[in-house]
Amino acid sequence: MDMSVNPAIPAAVASSNSPIEADALIVGAGPVGLFQIFELGLLEIKAHIVDSLSQPGGQPIELYPDKPIYDIPAIPVCTGKELTEGLLKQCEPFKPTFHLGQEVSSVAKREDGRFDVSTGAGTQFIAKTIFVAGGVGAFTPRKPKVEGISEFEAIGQVAYRVRDPQKYAGKDVVVLGGGDSALDWALNLQPIANSVTLVHRRDDFRAAPASVAKMRALVANQEMMHITGQFTGFEAADGKITEIKITSLDGVTRRLPLDYLLAFFGLSPRLGPIAEWGLDIEKRQVKVDTEKFETNIPGLFAVGDINTYPGKKKLILSGFHEAALAAFGAAKYIFPEKTVKLQYTTTSTKLHEVLGVESPVFD
Amino acid sequence: MDMSVNPAIPAAVASSNSPIEADALIVGAGPVGLFQIFELGLLEIKAHIVDSLSQPGGQPIELYPDKPIYDIPAIPVCTGKELTEGLLKQCEPFKPTFHLGQEVSSVAKREDGRFDVSTGAGTQFIAKTIFVAGGVGAFTPRKPKVEGISEFEAIGQVAYRVRDPQKYAGKDVVVLGGGDSALDWALNLQPIANSVTLVHRRDDFRAAPASVAKMRALVANQEMMHITGQFTGFEAADGKITEIKITSLDGVTRRLPLDYLLAFFGLSPRLGPIAEWGLDIEKRQVKVDTEKFETNIPGLFAVGDINTYPGKKKLILSGFHEAALAAFGAAKYIFPEKTVKLQYTTTSTKLHEVLGVESPVFD
Repeated sequence: MDMSVNPAIPAAVASSNSPIEADALIVGAGPVGLFQIFELGLLEIKAHIVDSLSQPGGQPIELYPDKPIYDIPAIPVCTGKELTEGLLKQCEPFKPTFHLGQEVSSVAKREDGRFDVSTGAGTQFIAKTIFVAGGVGAFTPRKPKVEGISEFEAIGQVAYRVRDPQKYAGKDVVVLGGGDSALDWALNLQPIANSVTLVHRRDDFRAAPASVAKMRALVANQEMMHITGQFTGFEAADGKITEIKITSLDGVTRRLPLDYLLAFFGLSPRLGPIAEWGLDIEKRQVKVDTEKFETNIPGLFAVGDINTYPGKKKLILSGFHEAALAAFGAAKYIFPEKTVKLQYTTTSTKLHEVLGVESPVFD
Repeated sequence: MDMSVNPAIPAAVASSNSPIEADALIVGAGPVGLFQIFELGLLEIKAHIVDSLSQPGGQPIELYPDKPIYDIPAIPVCTGKELTEGLLKQCEPFKPTFHLGQEVSSVAKREDGRFDVSTGAGTQFIAKTIFVAGGVGAFTPRKPKVEGISEFEAIGQVAYRVRDPQKYAGKDVVVLGGGDSALDWALNLQPIANSVTLVHRRDDFRAAPASVAKMRALVANQEMMHITGQFTGFEAADGKITEIKITSLDGVTRRLPLDYLLAFFGLSPRLGPIAEWGLDIEKRQVKVDTEKFETNIPGLFAVGDINTYPGKKKLILSGFHEAALAAFGAAKYIFPEKTVKLQYTTTSTKLHEVLGVESPVFD
């Protein structure tokens, strides 16, 4: 999987000590968060958007970038990647500012009614409104269940994503996992590493058949090693892992010396710091009304899979509707003196102006 | 405007004396009605769909087939025609039955909880559930405000749409209106009619610039006549109109002999017979809950622009959400013994089966 940020996206603004004043801060850059930018933009509200992942798109781009989705209205079929591209293109006229690879760590209501917000990367905001579009929460990589292994994350010997492939040049690398990410990185690192060993608990991969075939060909040629078994332990010396233990289905354990261990066990959702914001939460979902999708905290809205209300279905298309109504609900906090009316993108010259398109002849 | 039915649509079933038993009857084949087919289809509910117009697509295809729409989620821009095509393709796997060019005239609850429904064309249904997706009501052509003129509709001398252009071959035709339909038909009939006179109240047209230019060129060549003025009266003899009166802005009235009068003043929405169904109606909108978008009549749902609830915005994307939740709400009337669970089109093998697509490798 290509983990790089889409070049069409403006770079995240550098974190600085002075807080960014924002009319709207969206937490979560999945499909609903991206459409929230668009709906706010139509009302001339500019948005900042934070996501814990390093690219926009959320679940569809992380979990099924190439798998077909059939239930986006008027799009008979699209992949997670195409869905993300469509949404990014649609919100582009509104020039949102993306703050990626960082998680919102604290939210506090100020005396003036706005919110103080800070992220783990040190970015600070003073926001008039907040839109939690957090899907199922922040995604964090699932980690191997071997005690003590996370101690080696700090020195970069154990990692769950590849930031710089060159780091592995000439090294002995063990890749854990059986999905697309594991296969892709095993194949990408194979030409530059000294050795690549792919370890998966079963001899059955849930990855693109072409990648599996390529891996098997390399294994047959002894250019890659593939072991069926589970990572069960390790030995360390001088603060570094020297070898790991792999236990196969028949109970035999073998030892594998290595320089680096990469684990691709997928992403696990975590409600995360949202749980601490004072929101009315029921079974890990944030309660909202169905008029504005506002939470119990005025000015704080929740849209998409993270919210709940009578009849709620976790559908992307429901999140789109919620984002539209939340934008109207937020307008009163941003333009307290203005009545914001619904206009149509097909006929409104005003909306054509904000979208940067030409108005057709129409009266 | 091409008023013919999209050839991809199955022909309407012939009206017969025995009623059609339907699990779901959708009233209105606009964008939301079409997406209602899809959402019902995912739950394995087959739908019949009735519309007063002769083609599916509703307002976008009738009022702005070629004008861009910017706020369909994940579609940065599309025309009314493209939107309709996307929705028709999406619901195709569920083989809906279209009953076009007819209006639902009566709805009555039966003792067994189902509904007796009949249309103006004599089609009869016994339906377990009804989905009113009627937009702003049934569309009917706006008529000239000249007393007695509608008496000549029956003999076809006065008409608001062209069914068979050959009817006008060698005749003197007057076309009233200044929009695309008026211009298009004036231009289309000009080569075959004996004469075409275009009458519009102002010398300013809200039609495609190319059509206006073409019309002006024909007028300059004396191959078409164009009069600025208003249709104010007529003379008749032997049950036929012999000439009409056109009054110009300066008050001068001229007389214009003719064989046929075509008026294209646009379509006017009309709540129509829906007003008589016993629904809870507020300011011409049908009240619904926000959990299932069900009306005060159990089993009768209302989705899209025709409904109202706190926060309602008349957006197509809101109608899509309403259609999804209404489908789940309807399931209990159709499958009283089954609990219908939400499944995802990307991952559910069951949904791949109903959609008729292949399941990808995914675990």
